[in-house]
Amino acid sequence: MTKAYAAKKAGSELELIEVELPELGANEVKIKVAFCGVCHSDLSMLNNEWGISQYPLVAGHEVVGEIVEVGENVSSSKVGQIVGLGWHADYCQTCSTCGSGDQNLCGKAQPTIVGRHGGFAEFVQANQKSVVELPAGVDMKSAGPLFCGGITVFNPLVQFDIKPTDKVAVIGIGGLGHLGLQFLNAWGCEVTAFTSSESKANEAKQLGAHHVINSREEKEIEAAANTFDFIISTVNVKLDWNLYLSTLKPKGRLHFVGASLEPLDIGVFNLLGGQKSVSGSPVGSPATIAKMLDFAARHNIKPMVEMYDMSQVNEAIEHLEKGDARYRVVLQADF
Amino acid sequence: MTKAYAAKKAGSELELIEVELPELGANEVKIKVAFCGVCHSDLSMLNNEWGISQYPLVAGHEVVGEIVEVGENVSSSKVGQIVGLGWHADYCQTCSTCGSGDQNLCGKAQPTIVGRHGGFAEFVQANQKSVVELPAGVDMKSAGPLFCGGITVFNPLVQFDIKPTDKVAVIGIGGLGHLGLQFLNAWGCEVTAFTSSESKANEAKQLGAHHVINSREEKEIEAAANTFDFIISTVNVKLDWNLYLSTLKPKGRLHFVGASLEPLDIGVFNLLGGQKSVSGSPVGSPATIAKMLDFAARHNIKPMVEMYDMSQVNEAIEHLEKGDARYRVVLQADF
Repeated sequence: MTKAYAAKKAGSELELIEVELPELGANEVKIKVAFCGVCHSDLSMLNNEWGISQYPLVAGHEVVGEIVEVGENVSSSKVGQIVGLGWHADYCQTCSTCGSGDQNLCGKAQPTIVGRHGGFAEFVQANQKSVVELPAGVDMKSAGPLFCGGITVFNPLVQFDIKPTDKVAVIGIGGLGHLGLQFLNAWGCEVTAFTSSESKANEAKQLGAHHVINSREEKEIEAAANTFDFIISTVNVKLDWNLYLSTLKPKGRLHFVGASLEPLDIGVFNLLGGQKSVSGSPVGSPATIAKMLDFAARHNIKPMVEMYDMSQVNEAIEHLEKGDARYRVVLQADF
Repeated sequence: MTKAYAAKKAGSELELIEVELPELGANEVKIKVAFCGVCHSDLSMLNNEWGISQYPLVAGHEVVGEIVEVGENVSSSKVGQIVGLGWHADYCQTCSTCGSGDQNLCGKAQPTIVGRHGGFAEFVQANQKSVVELPAGVDMKSAGPLFCGGITVFNPLVQFDIKPTDKVAVIGIGGLGHLGLQFLNAWGCEVTAFTSSESKANEAKQLGAHHVINSREEKEIEAAANTFDFIISTVNVKLDWNLYLSTLKPKGRLHFVGASLEPLDIGVFNLLGGQKSVSGSPVGSPATIAKMLDFAARHNIKPMVEMYDMSQVNEAIEHLEKGDARYRVVLQADF
């Protein structure tokens, strides 16, 4: 059994309940949760926006904690290690996608909070392949958000071979975007932040942006025509994507890690003339997560977090839903 | 002066006229046209579909002929050479895009039939950088279509580093697609043709397709879920692009070289889950054209062409407009 904060139905307040833990699998580790970030995907799951939620639902997939038990076949983790667990708690490990090191794209990967319970709990269990040890220099308290928000913006830099000489932009300076700015600055790039919030302009510069463009001012965006090699969009609203495509240089890429439900409405000619690409990606593989943690430690990159006790989870969620979080909410276990 | 077949206004029949040739530039070559392919872009320009046509308009940008005169600074071409000229007749040659070898993406590149006259003529003039010599083994009569249709489908294989181990597909088996099948087969790939025309299924196999899928049968397309690394679309009509995205493997790319005027209507989630890309590209650089000609010669890749005398240009255009061409129309100069 474990104590956990669960929603009993879509949209209901979370309540402290006891959850049955399945027997620990031979390849699984049991983690005593110390901290857990709150991600927008948690809200989507709690509200059953994607139609795949099972109740009572225990959300939380930005977990940091200590391994307290390991299954009999576990070789890559041991009791006492401080590890993180993100969106995926297991992969099939047999398909060619897993075999190629792209476990995060495995069609049978198991999300930590779908058909399982997540990190708004005292304990959580996951396959050894899905947990990654925190290297020295990564602050345990604020590390949780790296395991979903962080890897989501870091992974594309690896996947698409972003160069330190590239001019890049981040659309939306929130939980993901504020990490994107830090990663891209440390990557060596010239970084522009697109934000609709004037109050975030200065913070964006402190986080690593060399330039800030007000995304409500169409003319400011137009003036950036033919500027960027790579744009990463973290927002989940529909913007004028063809306008953003015009700010790309030839061979540029507009990459989505935020998911709006509205179709993209891209003009083919806007791709064709300059050989431009539009793409998307989810989180990252365990190897890329490890690479990110090492990079974050070396460059002192940290999520800016607001801490709540886990017993205040409902207040924390309300704060996030209001859009007030600067920039990520982390719960500290207080069972 | 040169004789040429020109449209005097949008949509009118072509008439034989005399056109003033500007003085040959220091870096230009003068080509006596022997053959010229007819491309759909010629029809779009003749009908002013893109709003950039100037009349009288001499179309034709798949030119093969002999250099009969060179400007005083010309070093890379000489009189007597057999060369081809495609969509671009000049590049700025000073921007960073040109400097990086991507002249085909140069913002100031000059199309052969915009503000100039093209290859439905006795003579055509172009910058030395834009013409490429035909290597031994490339048949002069059928080579014209390689310089626009051919390079348009060949260039993406180079740009996106398509592997011989990839599973690939071509949507639309026409002027571009029939060359795409040949290139991809010789590239070593497993090749699938998507065609709405049952009559083309057998020919598609002769051209290099290992499999043919009837694009009117949604279920056949659905059955190809998670199959392709790369799909190249040569059609200019709107299809169910999200359905085609589902046939891509993780990290797959849906690439457009045909341009429909309707927006793509792509669901972000369909890109995001499998880290998929959507992109487009136009023709190719002179260096890539030379690479293509060498590859075509080595693998005996040839456009399948239907020959008309240039004086039959109006019949040739009518044949193409009806969709009857198998697979490209070439005009033979008969001035």
